Amino acid sequence: MSSERLVVVGGVAAGMSAASQVKRRSPETEVIVFEKGPWVSYGACGMPYNIQDPKRAIDDLVVITPERFRSERGIDVRTRTEVLELDLAKRIVVVRRTDGESRVEFDKLVIATGCRPQIPAFSGVELEGVFSLHTLMDAERIKRYLNDSSIRRAVVVGGGHIGLEMADVLTARGLSVSLLKRSASLPPGYPEEISAIVREELTRYGVQLETGVKVLGFEGDTRVRKVKTDRGSLDADFVLVATGVRPEVTLAEQAGIKLGAGGTIAVDASMATSAEGVFAAGDCAEAYHALLGKSAFIPRGTTANKQGKIAGANVAGAGQSFRGVMGTSVTKVFGLAVGHTGLMEDQTRQAGFDPAAAMIKARTRAHAYPGAKDIAVRLVLDKGSGKLLGAQMAGGEGVAKRLDVIVAALQAGWTVEDLAALDMSYAPPFAPVWDPVLVAANIACKKRS
Amino acid sequence: MSSERLVVVGGVAAGMSAASQVKRRSPETEVIVFEKGPWVSYGACGMPYNIQDPKRAIDDLVVITPERFRSERGIDVRTRTEVLELDLAKRIVVVRRTDGESRVEFDKLVIATGCRPQIPAFSGVELEGVFSLHTLMDAERIKRYLNDSSIRRAVVVGGGHIGLEMADVLTARGLSVSLLKRSASLPPGYPEEISAIVREELTRYGVQLETGVKVLGFEGDTRVRKVKTDRGSLDADFVLVATGVRPEVTLAEQAGIKLGAGGTIAVDASMATSAEGVFAAGDCAEAYHALLGKSAFIPRGTTANKQGKIAGANVAGAGQSFRGVMGTSVTKVFGLAVGHTGLMEDQTRQAGFDPAAAMIKARTRAHAYPGAKDIAVRLVLDKGSGKLLGAQMAGGEGVAKRLDVIVAALQAGWTVEDLAALDMSYAPPFAPVWDPVLVAANIACKKRS
Repeated sequence: MSSERLVVVGGVAAGMSAASQVKRRSPETEVIVFEKGPWVSYGACGMPYNIQDPKRAIDDLVVITPERFRSERGIDVRTRTEVLELDLAKRIVVVRRTDGESRVEFDKLVIATGCRPQIPAFSGVELEGVFSLHTLMDAERIKRYLNDSSIRRAVVVGGGHIGLEMADVLTARGLSVSLLKRSASLPPGYPEEISAIVREELTRYGVQLETGVKVLGFEGDTRVRKVKTDRGSLDADFVLVATGVRPEVTLAEQAGIKLGAGGTIAVDASMATSAEGVFAAGDCAEAYHALLGKSAFIPRGTTANKQGKIAGANVAGAGQSFRGVMGTSVTKVFGLAVGHTGLMEDQTRQAGFDPAAAMIKARTRAHAYPGAKDIAVRLVLDKGSGKLLGAQMAGGEGVAKRLDVIVAALQAGWTVEDLAALDMSYAPPFAPVWDPVLVAANIACKKRS
Repeated sequence: MSSERLVVVGGVAAGMSAASQVKRRSPETEVIVFEKGPWVSYGACGMPYNIQDPKRAIDDLVVITPERFRSERGIDVRTRTEVLELDLAKRIVVVRRTDGESRVEFDKLVIATGCRPQIPAFSGVELEGVFSLHTLMDAERIKRYLNDSSIRRAVVVGGGHIGLEMADVLTARGLSVSLLKRSASLPPGYPEEISAIVREELTRYGVQLETGVKVLGFEGDTRVRKVKTDRGSLDADFVLVATGVRPEVTLAEQAGIKLGAGGTIAVDASMATSAEGVFAAGDCAEAYHALLGKSAFIPRGTTANKQGKIAGANVAGAGQSFRGVMGTSVTKVFGLAVGHTGLMEDQTRQAGFDPAAAMIKARTRAHAYPGAKDIAVRLVLDKGSGKLLGAQMAGGEGVAKRLDVIVAALQAGWTVEDLAALDMSYAPPFAPVWDPVLVAANIACKKRS
């Protein structure tokens, strides 16, 4: 009897995690990964920082090369190979390479097609110098374009994490940067108290921030020269459109696989789709939000890795479950880290809670220890029960891991009193004796009705 | 009817927290604080770093001056006033100042006498140049002594957090430093895998580390010149004896108050002692270890602040409970942070568990992001149940707050699978996509029997 064959569609985070996990647990399974681009297994979140450093090669971001996947893990990685169709009845995928189309049989399938940029219908979006940053090929193109030292004025459209990180990176590369955003919240959806800190940081580093502005299109000759908005036009010779992403589910949808929250592929806790023997993982798949108690489109590299690993384990029969996300996110914006976990107030209301917020500003180290930075911690709680529902933070150091303390508190289902009791570590170089998280928790305890 | 009077014995962390809390909740209560030394409310844990900087005044460490406690909070702070006796039957304390003894009545009492250095009976311990570092007066004396630029060779006796921090600080001040320790574990009680990292860091920075050595005494003329050990003698013109601390309970014991774990004052969750209307808080009081399910002597500035606040709240009738500690500790040792929380393996066995450990070494940032440091994460679990029991870490950044994630996991009573499911934050500047905590948790999941 021949061995089982797994086909994986997409070879970045979720796809390669699934493939690796299957090979680890079930070495006899044949694993073929199809990836449209030339690279697999790259750290997409690192692309802005690679672009920042002109000396670094773009494939520095590749964690494991296709050759090593083949030789060390026995995974048949086929790059520059686009999957055109999934035929679930015949158990085949139709793929295209430069040398033509072919059909490949599978027993089991993992769909890890990720997401794609959502670009509004701006006029002139096809001009040279207008980019989105999604794949490593995008990053390579941007990096090559920035080698032209006559490029001076960048306009970033959108204030999500890619827009913010790229405003930082482009400034570091010596460009004059404008950031255009439709709403004042920054990152999108953040409360004004935190947004104000982020706006101030952008301004401090010379970014021309315009909020409440609508981009109409781009103008230029061979390359982009102007960005037209409803408030006039800006000179630009580099434009990054970072206006969000959508799940890439075309193949799954055409194959009749059930879609779920936010246009993702519907999955159960085992990462199985509605189709027998077909799993989905990563940005294209639903992420169960453990606090909302329902799934959503929440694209994250961390989730892609976890879901891919679980999908792979279950292809091999392990019976694992994905426990869900808290929506955690963190972004570097110049000298600031800004992030959140859990629910924003509007989400808490939709979920039936009666929210209150406690916001504190503190320092990251003991008062007499040099080098301390400012940090703002904002906790959201349910007034009636005292249940902790979310947090947003912005600060000069120690934000990401303090956020993770809150993630744990959310996963544990704690009240703000539970959080206030936490025996957090203390030494002057690392925190004040009352950590900012505990100060915020103490204030939150007083917000209960 | 006259208002109630609270007397607080000791004005550092726990004492001033209690006093402030009483005044906040019950402004009509008269609050008198007696402090033996000239300062109150200082950050004792910051003393090494103040000593490091010759330009900083020692009283930079004072958070709030006695004058401000009086004028802004209405607390009658009496410094340089030693309490000689607690007479619980007559409800008076006997105090001594330079101008003589007096008796002060009280209705309620908070004992916050802290701890004291435990110094073995070394010969020559009285020589000039031999110090312990416990109070701000000690710190001032050390700092003044180090102003003498002929001081070149320091010997630190003991490898606990004060010994390690001072080895770092004295090196930074240009002294040649030897650190002598009886056992090889560093900090005391740490597993060899972590101790090895700490020893290597000390050696890298030029500290002469001698473990398995017993100090016999000190020799000198007007000032110390030599440290005698069972392996020979070392030249020294500065000696720091940092061989641990004991709870300072003399007054409480003489008053007939019940003692508890590790020679501390026995307290219940409200911080009440065995004597009616008498509370104890801070290093002199028991700390309930929530994972061991029993109390112990675990002196920490964080605990002193929390317990003081709770004792004060309860003096004012609030009915609060101290939820306990996890034994969390973190220390800076040159470029390294080293810390632990929860139980070490020997403690887990005493508590009836069957422990296993999972140790990983990783990097603190994404592989392609510059500036990453090494980090080691070691988790201790119960093999049968998978329950997480403790962690030790050492690394170049992000240790303290990662430790706090484990503290939360311990407080929540999690298994290692629960920890592995955590939706931790990720961006390349702050962590790898699989945070070292999650990598360690994944390995720990495989250690279950």
